[in-house]
Amino acid sequence: MAVALDQPAVLQSIRGIRLASADAGIAYGDRDDLVLMAIDPGSHTAAVFTNNAFCAAPVVLAREHLSRASPRFLLINSGNANAGLGDDGVADALSCCQRVAHLGRCDVQQVLPFSTGVIGARLPAERIVLALPGMLEKLADDAWLIAAAAIMTTDTVPKGISKTLELHGKRVTLTGIAKGAGMIRPDMATMLCFVATDIQIPRRRLDGLLKRAVADSFNSITVDGDTSTNDACVLIATGRSGVELNNDDDPVYGAFLRALSELMTALALSIVRDGEGATRLITIKVEAAATKEEARQVAYTVAHSPLVKTAFFAGDPNWGRILAAVGRAGIDCLDTKRIAIYLDEVPIVRAGAADPNYTELAGQAVMRRSEITVRIVLRRGYREALVWTTDLSHDYVRINAEYRT
Amino acid sequence: MAVALDQPAVLQSIRGIRLASADAGIAYGDRDDLVLMAIDPGSHTAAVFTNNAFCAAPVVLAREHLSRASPRFLLINSGNANAGLGDDGVADALSCCQRVAHLGRCDVQQVLPFSTGVIGARLPAERIVLALPGMLEKLADDAWLIAAAAIMTTDTVPKGISKTLELHGKRVTLTGIAKGAGMIRPDMATMLCFVATDIQIPRRRLDGLLKRAVADSFNSITVDGDTSTNDACVLIATGRSGVELNNDDDPVYGAFLRALSELMTALALSIVRDGEGATRLITIKVEAAATKEEARQVAYTVAHSPLVKTAFFAGDPNWGRILAAVGRAGIDCLDTKRIAIYLDEVPIVRAGAADPNYTELAGQAVMRRSEITVRIVLRRGYREALVWTTDLSHDYVRINAEYRT
Repeated sequence: MAVALDQPAVLQSIRGIRLASADAGIAYGDRDDLVLMAIDPGSHTAAVFTNNAFCAAPVVLAREHLSRASPRFLLINSGNANAGLGDDGVADALSCCQRVAHLGRCDVQQVLPFSTGVIGARLPAERIVLALPGMLEKLADDAWLIAAAAIMTTDTVPKGISKTLELHGKRVTLTGIAKGAGMIRPDMATMLCFVATDIQIPRRRLDGLLKRAVADSFNSITVDGDTSTNDACVLIATGRSGVELNNDDDPVYGAFLRALSELMTALALSIVRDGEGATRLITIKVEAAATKEEARQVAYTVAHSPLVKTAFFAGDPNWGRILAAVGRAGIDCLDTKRIAIYLDEVPIVRAGAADPNYTELAGQAVMRRSEITVRIVLRRGYREALVWTTDLSHDYVRINAEYRT
Repeated sequence: MAVALDQPAVLQSIRGIRLASADAGIAYGDRDDLVLMAIDPGSHTAAVFTNNAFCAAPVVLAREHLSRASPRFLLINSGNANAGLGDDGVADALSCCQRVAHLGRCDVQQVLPFSTGVIGARLPAERIVLALPGMLEKLADDAWLIAAAAIMTTDTVPKGISKTLELHGKRVTLTGIAKGAGMIRPDMATMLCFVATDIQIPRRRLDGLLKRAVADSFNSITVDGDTSTNDACVLIATGRSGVELNNDDDPVYGAFLRALSELMTALALSIVRDGEGATRLITIKVEAAATKEEARQVAYTVAHSPLVKTAFFAGDPNWGRILAAVGRAGIDCLDTKRIAIYLDEVPIVRAGAADPNYTELAGQAVMRRSEITVRIVLRRGYREALVWTTDLSHDYVRINAEYRT
């Protein structure tokens, strides 16, 4: 049951990108579970991957391939994470890449593999290889929505969004698809995101843009704090719009970064809205912190507190739990007497203690909403941070306890 | 439903300590909720308190009083945490201490207040003050078990233990009582622990002993990671056994520290066993780490993972979740290929991947037990850490979502 989340109506195609999907029978049997994305020559690709030390075989390989060549194909499967399998996992992923390279007439290092699904089961590489020839023939530029559906694991809704903007008098388009937040369903590991645009950007600048956009979107969401072994976010610039973005002084640079950040934030939020068992979308905003880091530290401590999360599930304006979480966030010399906390527009804590004007009635009125912002003002400086999360519901425990067949 | 936890049969009295309890009508109405502990002159007292920056009024006051005088009375109430109330909270706690000092003929700084219960509600100081004269008359040395019951909040079983040992040919006794782990029930904030012994120890050495015993006991347990605003652990040495412990070279020093650590570990484990919704006691043991800190970091990351905890609740030997939690623990240059992981005696991960001999059947056999050890061997050095925790059950969410009247 996602929080106010609809299937995307239409996803714009991006010149220079073609996609195909297939049912390779990896895990589900009755739906597509494999996507091939072909990238025209002359495109540039940037990617960020999970920080989990136990990263999956496809992450090892994709990272290495990307460091050596310019990608021509992405091969993405759902249903199997190809993680926790040592050298066997790397060999399986490599054999799939080799087949794509052979059929697609490029170097194996120009193929990046991505997997999401169950940890610890061998990837059915033969079945994937068998599906490839048909996929190459089917490649089309209008298959984004089909691809969004094929990469789903425990998602209840396919996730995608397009944006267009005018830059230097020409139309630039961005389209992105994404799936499943973090390890919100752990055996079904992974957040995956693929964004393409037809703007022309040099590779090094693309890396910088991706990092900045990820910091404020995917790196600011959490469902349960469990970083998966397979997370990846890819940004491809095909250059086919004829608009170039060569230096940071370019007046359109800011406009493009804003559009990219908005698109990636929308995808990130769709992942949170579809978080396991989520009944509410909670925004934690920490303001007036001494550093960005301490702002994020406080925001994540509150966002990960099982007690805060269960209170939101119950619709209980339990300010004591929020206050206690702020207090244990590990901030040096925190002067609690300067702190104010708000639930949406309602002040709940002032000068470090219950706001004398706070009433349970006002708190409960906020708690009836399905989207709530907790604003924590530290009065230590000028930095802030935003983190999005969900509540912790009966369904989260049910899904994660009962899952596994 | 506590995991294999019985009410203590008998608690030994400690010469120099007398206790009394009363129903002051603080929150429950039908049971004792107030304890007064009288400490004979000549005793020494050490204490450690919560690191939560939003610490409660009694913690502020107890810390200050202890730094200035040798305590003669501890005043402990359940049902109300006296937290989040600013200066009003301090004034309320102080007025109770003043009344104890007046009746007990000591300085107000010789009275330490402790509270546990709902955050944000004013302490009913008048009702507490009214109960005090009767309690002073009732003080007795055999009231430890009654006191253990009176400090309970959401605990299902009173927690206490006694130990005796022979040192220098004389009998030394230790008795301790404790309540409710961390913020396992948050509005019912607090872990409180009071241990007394009749050994003679100088104050400075007592501080050191308490810190060492706490590090391996109370500071190694977690239910939900939520540190309360009111946690406190107190150690009193009355000296009435006639056994002195004046320097660390004393051959009995090690024996006494071991007894104290065992007693405090048993109390800490009784808190975990009685954790909210707990159906299993999980021991996380990280071995062969480069430093004690990284060992603890890995252990706590696994212990706090909602996915690991729900898997244990489900009795699911889900090694992928444990492996992923180790991988995201933030250890620099972690070579996953050196890591081994065991569920009790069953190897599940070897050389960073699924152990080839692992069978689901063997994993499920371990998972039928109510007490399970996860052993994680990093092969980076010689340090280790132990952390105890519980699973995450439907009841945890129910208790924490539905609580609040």
